[in-house]
Amino acid sequence: MSVGLEFPSSLIPIEGVRLSVTSANIYAEKRNDLALIELVEGSAVSAVFTKNLFCAAPVEVAKNNLNDAKPRYCLINAGNANAGTGKQGMLNAKNTCKTLADIAACKEMEVLPFSTGVIGEDLPVEKINNALPGLLTNLSDDNWLDTAKAIMTTDTIPKAISSQLSIDGKMVNITGIVKGAGMIKPDMATMLSFIATDANINKNILDKILLNAVEKSFNRITIDGDTSTNDACVIMATGKASNSLIDSCNNDGYIDFENAMINICRELAQAIVRDGEGATKFISIEVNGGKNAEECLSVAYKIAESPLVKTAFTASDPNWGRILAAIGNSGIDDLDINKVDICLDDVCIIENGQRCATYTEAKGKTVMSQSEITLSIRLDRGNCQEEIWTTDLSHEYITINAEYRT
Amino acid sequence: MSVGLEFPSSLIPIEGVRLSVTSANIYAEKRNDLALIELVEGSAVSAVFTKNLFCAAPVEVAKNNLNDAKPRYCLINAGNANAGTGKQGMLNAKNTCKTLADIAACKEMEVLPFSTGVIGEDLPVEKINNALPGLLTNLSDDNWLDTAKAIMTTDTIPKAISSQLSIDGKMVNITGIVKGAGMIKPDMATMLSFIATDANINKNILDKILLNAVEKSFNRITIDGDTSTNDACVIMATGKASNSLIDSCNNDGYIDFENAMINICRELAQAIVRDGEGATKFISIEVNGGKNAEECLSVAYKIAESPLVKTAFTASDPNWGRILAAIGNSGIDDLDINKVDICLDDVCIIENGQRCATYTEAKGKTVMSQSEITLSIRLDRGNCQEEIWTTDLSHEYITINAEYRT
Repeated sequence: MSVGLEFPSSLIPIEGVRLSVTSANIYAEKRNDLALIELVEGSAVSAVFTKNLFCAAPVEVAKNNLNDAKPRYCLINAGNANAGTGKQGMLNAKNTCKTLADIAACKEMEVLPFSTGVIGEDLPVEKINNALPGLLTNLSDDNWLDTAKAIMTTDTIPKAISSQLSIDGKMVNITGIVKGAGMIKPDMATMLSFIATDANINKNILDKILLNAVEKSFNRITIDGDTSTNDACVIMATGKASNSLIDSCNNDGYIDFENAMINICRELAQAIVRDGEGATKFISIEVNGGKNAEECLSVAYKIAESPLVKTAFTASDPNWGRILAAIGNSGIDDLDINKVDICLDDVCIIENGQRCATYTEAKGKTVMSQSEITLSIRLDRGNCQEEIWTTDLSHEYITINAEYRT
Repeated sequence: MSVGLEFPSSLIPIEGVRLSVTSANIYAEKRNDLALIELVEGSAVSAVFTKNLFCAAPVEVAKNNLNDAKPRYCLINAGNANAGTGKQGMLNAKNTCKTLADIAACKEMEVLPFSTGVIGEDLPVEKINNALPGLLTNLSDDNWLDTAKAIMTTDTIPKAISSQLSIDGKMVNITGIVKGAGMIKPDMATMLSFIATDANINKNILDKILLNAVEKSFNRITIDGDTSTNDACVIMATGKASNSLIDSCNNDGYIDFENAMINICRELAQAIVRDGEGATKFISIEVNGGKNAEECLSVAYKIAESPLVKTAFTASDPNWGRILAAIGNSGIDDLDINKVDICLDDVCIIENGQRCATYTEAKGKTVMSQSEITLSIRLDRGNCQEEIWTTDLSHEYITINAEYRT
């Protein structure tokens, strides 16, 4: 079940990037569960990782390697998170990087490992290592869709997107993939997202653009309020497009490229929500009139993570009292509730803290029965606004998460 | 469905307290939904109320009236929260107090109103007022159980308890009732709890004891992390026991009485959790070795409110990776994860941040299949400890809350 997502099509290959997938038999039922992304030498790579203190071994290794070298490979497995695995987890992650490096004739630190799946089980190193020669043999620049599929866990649909822009008259291409779909409240980055571009751009500027794009996309979604141990978002620029190098914010094309990257990240972040575990609704929550971003976000997340609000959305029940209770409970001590407005799309429910004279239960039911809904909250105490995206909480979420390991 | 709760029995009448229930037809299906508690003149009454900014009209009225007079009556309805009802809500709450006061020949400010139920619908004032004469006629000191039943909403079982203690050789009695069962993360008090005692004690000391007792009981539970608009906990002391007046912390009997009150409040708070919406498990979360209470509680609540941890409990799945992720995500920036221990009852899972050598999946499954489980977390960075109580997250929770108003 997903909300308003279509199967990805027309994904644009990125010059300098080749991909490959295979089954390493990590899942009991055979499926592609191992993917490799190869980058041409000299590519600029930026990445952000989870802030969860119990971050997974591959996150530690990838952070270190990215610090020490220019990456040539991203090695990604699904089905096992290699998190909560202690020292052995670190050895296992490094072991797969070393094995790949030996076969590919690169340095171990030029490999970034990524894992997603069940926490607390040892990584099946031998299965993965055995699959590496085949992965290297089958690299191709048009394997984006297969890679998007191979990194899925509880996702129901592969999520990928491409876009193009012109920089100083030269065509620049971007293609990105992402996987969700539970333990989603990214804090720096989402579960796993890999975005490649042929743009000619240096690493410092790419780092800056990544942080900005992530802040406006992956850091604005929540499915269940749980920040994962394995979140990572990687942006890779091969420099094969013939635009003149972007190495400053003042360069031609900087703004356009950053906007294109923000748009891609927002599309991918929203795709995670649309394919959130058990999602039957895609809900945008806009909070405006706040004194600062922090208080807008605290209201938005309190609503987005309220099980009572979420189940009301599931039931298409305009039980706005739950929204009101969540706002009253969001930690803004000096909030004047007599100034608060609440609307669902264009249906005004609460005006100045009281039920709107024009509101009827019938109007509420109609708007709540939509599969995509924008909930707007006006605080009327400042000029800041923030928007986040979330899902409802359905029986399917319980089923998925009660049966995840069985 | 409730966990380990028995139908209340042997409730002790409290001299100076009479109760009465009736149906005011607030619910579509006829049931007792209106209750009255009468206090003998001169009773000391303490109360704490929700901190939700969108607090209900009766909460505002009860706070004011308690400030202005010594209460003689608590008037409680179920089925309608009279919250989010604006100025009309205030008028309605006051109207019922005034009507009762007129019939009972007391002052309007001597009546405390309480409401619980659906938020955002106008209080059916006429129905309530019409039922008041009958309520006054039927007052009796042994109606505690019926009152516990009449204030239920999604509760599945009435929750009430009595205890006795001796103060300077005199028998002192306490009887309390409480209702839950969703929108439960009390912040000062729980949904609705009324506790009466015949102890001879002054209001200042009763206020102090109430705050202390609530802090150790109702403020240590969460079902869904949603703080209600209508929370209230009221303690009423009629002074009819012949103990010498408790008017100082140094009086004989102060400590014993406070402990008895803490115990009653803990039992009632835990009863809310045991009867939490959709609860199939009663989970105690103990966090020790913290630097202060705040960080112990942030770890405990992060775990207790993680939908992923909750669904793992529902499934009896020892998916401890989710507990670990919640701890890593609880906001203690300088937590050394290599010192963290995690146990389920006597089964050690994580020791010094790594999977315990003695842990097996079979042991984990056995302990997770119990209906009552203690999850202990050791942070090893200080001497503070805190304990909270919570439930799992089951299909039944979704069903209850998706269909609450239908």
